[in-house]
Amino acid sequence: MCGQKSVIRELFMYGRERAAEIGYDNVFDYSLGNPSVAPPQSFTDEMIRLLKESEPVSLHGYSPTLGIDSAREAVAESLNDRFDMQYEKKDIFMVSGAAGAIAHAVRAVTVAGDEVITFAPFFPEYRPYIEATGAVLKVVPADISTFQINFDAFVDMLNDKVMAVLINTPNNPSGIVYSTETIKKLAMILSEKEEEFGHPIYIISDEPYREIVFEGVDAPFIASHYNNTLTCYSFSKSLSLPGERIGYIAVNPACGDSELLVEMFGQISRGIGHNCPPSIIQLAVSKCLYETSDLSVYETNKNILYTELTKIGFDIVEPGGTFYMFPKSLEEDAVAFCNKAKELDLIIVPSNTFGVNGHFRISYCIPTEKVERSIAAFQKLADMYL
Amino acid sequence: MCGQKSVIRELFMYGRERAAEIGYDNVFDYSLGNPSVAPPQSFTDEMIRLLKESEPVSLHGYSPTLGIDSAREAVAESLNDRFDMQYEKKDIFMVSGAAGAIAHAVRAVTVAGDEVITFAPFFPEYRPYIEATGAVLKVVPADISTFQINFDAFVDMLNDKVMAVLINTPNNPSGIVYSTETIKKLAMILSEKEEEFGHPIYIISDEPYREIVFEGVDAPFIASHYNNTLTCYSFSKSLSLPGERIGYIAVNPACGDSELLVEMFGQISRGIGHNCPPSIIQLAVSKCLYETSDLSVYETNKNILYTELTKIGFDIVEPGGTFYMFPKSLEEDAVAFCNKAKELDLIIVPSNTFGVNGHFRISYCIPTEKVERSIAAFQKLADMYL
Repeated sequence: MCGQKSVIRELFMYGRERAAEIGYDNVFDYSLGNPSVAPPQSFTDEMIRLLKESEPVSLHGYSPTLGIDSAREAVAESLNDRFDMQYEKKDIFMVSGAAGAIAHAVRAVTVAGDEVITFAPFFPEYRPYIEATGAVLKVVPADISTFQINFDAFVDMLNDKVMAVLINTPNNPSGIVYSTETIKKLAMILSEKEEEFGHPIYIISDEPYREIVFEGVDAPFIASHYNNTLTCYSFSKSLSLPGERIGYIAVNPACGDSELLVEMFGQISRGIGHNCPPSIIQLAVSKCLYETSDLSVYETNKNILYTELTKIGFDIVEPGGTFYMFPKSLEEDAVAFCNKAKELDLIIVPSNTFGVNGHFRISYCIPTEKVERSIAAFQKLADMYL
Repeated sequence: MCGQKSVIRELFMYGRERAAEIGYDNVFDYSLGNPSVAPPQSFTDEMIRLLKESEPVSLHGYSPTLGIDSAREAVAESLNDRFDMQYEKKDIFMVSGAAGAIAHAVRAVTVAGDEVITFAPFFPEYRPYIEATGAVLKVVPADISTFQINFDAFVDMLNDKVMAVLINTPNNPSGIVYSTETIKKLAMILSEKEEEFGHPIYIISDEPYREIVFEGVDAPFIASHYNNTLTCYSFSKSLSLPGERIGYIAVNPACGDSELLVEMFGQISRGIGHNCPPSIIQLAVSKCLYETSDLSVYETNKNILYTELTKIGFDIVEPGGTFYMFPKSLEEDAVAFCNKAKELDLIIVPSNTFGVNGHFRISYCIPTEKVERSIAAFQKLADMYL
């Protein structure tokens, strides 16, 4: 069962060790997508209120397999309010973060040997997530000029074993947001192919960055464009709670099998040892569904990096959201490039780990003053090449 | 992927509906193992302290895959203090409860087709836990006179495909604790078979009830009797936190592969969408490792039920711990028997679901005054037969 370790985690561990040697201020660690801003005060207040005022046996007791009723209802309602949808409690499954959500979604809609398509660049953990289910992961090569979908390559890959398409917009690692045009075209192709193959093809929409979208960017809600959508959400980024493992799957009720799928998630939980996200966290986040952390720092950091790095000579598709950016590396070999950066104590992640050559990922969820100080290091790095 | 629903959960849901109809006080719901006592105040205090005093970004941030260092260290140290062991941080994997622990332990030591042996009566969720891994669950028939191990049947089942033996002591549903004699005999047999087959056979020891042992009962710490022991622990029962999903796997360092196994747990997590128990709960429980909830009510309830039911004429092996009891039903068909009980608003679980005929489980984690009032209902039930 032992696989390759996460390259990102290893770079992060290196950054920590290096910081211990030369001081935290001297390492520009752009490796990990760990939010840098606090959760909203309302989350902390609600946690304390629950701990002080609730009857503790029931507060910490077993929760229903599909999630706490009030949390499921609140999630459905907030999605309806925000995106003009018709979710009900029965369509919502509370889950311990996006990894857990995808683990359930893929198992519910595939059997061993079925195919799941995703699009490069993609979060490298998708491979272990999918392969452990017995399904086969197929990767559509990137359109590196826009990081929207490379539709020609996608259509070539569609066959009747494809049961799901896994998308991630706003995207890790590119920061790109799929446009309404992209989503409409994707939905149209999938609907045609569903008819041709005579079975549903689900969009599994991994949306932890949904709330981190920059000014003026077109960011459609996926499920409103395609009935067979399983929306996998995590509060990790929007509420800055990555360690507390809380999210949900929302099954579009317009999808014929919504209630059955949610029941299946409950059965799948039993087999993979999942068994409900923590009760107190379910209750606390359900009071913060219309809020986010102060996410503005990410746009500030994006603007600085995009402007300054472009000036230096880097070639970058401007991100529409997230806290990632995916510039071209200054040599074809991204690993060699990132190793040179490492010598300057600039920790960036080579693109190969995301299924694309010749790029690197910057995770700019770090303090702005550090972003500003890092520009000199990027300049030094560029000076080696330009 | 859809399987049979949990009989216990269905009876629990029935109990809730019935309570809504005729009042909570009038339903004797002995269906679910949901602790009835509050967590220790120190847990609540530590949660509030963390929320008020910690830097929130780091408090709620991603934790390392294997668990938060300080939590792993604290768990190792507390086991060493209490059971005279030599655990180190490297031997401890933090996990989201016992279901998660078993999901990792079985995947780490088996490949598809390998066998895992357990002993009736057994927690019915073991079947989905094991079968979802691809391993095969084999069940040793119960020794219904003592509910210790039926060694003759066990030895007959051992073959070189057996990679693990899953035990649960103190036991759900019987309440029986394996004696030192039982564990020594089990360890001796397994050691001989390891030599014969030329590969390790692990004991996966599911110990959520370890802290609920009644006065004077011999309750050995399993890992101190057998090197290849993976101790799967949950704080659900000892700290009354079943909804918060927190536990650990401790790999006996005397087992040759301890560090490798813990690393494998981390890899397995990636494939099943597990990804760490909640950070704040890891931190809070690691301050309560020498404490428990006030568990005395369970022994009080056991004494009342054992004395009164025996008087009425029930045949019961006296529990040594847990909050379960497993009397013989008054007709061979346990389901029919429990249906009769249900008509008296006495919710008990038929033994078939635990792999044994002709018994029923009482989960006596309910208020003592309710236990006392329930005796009349048991008397009525018995009057139909005796």
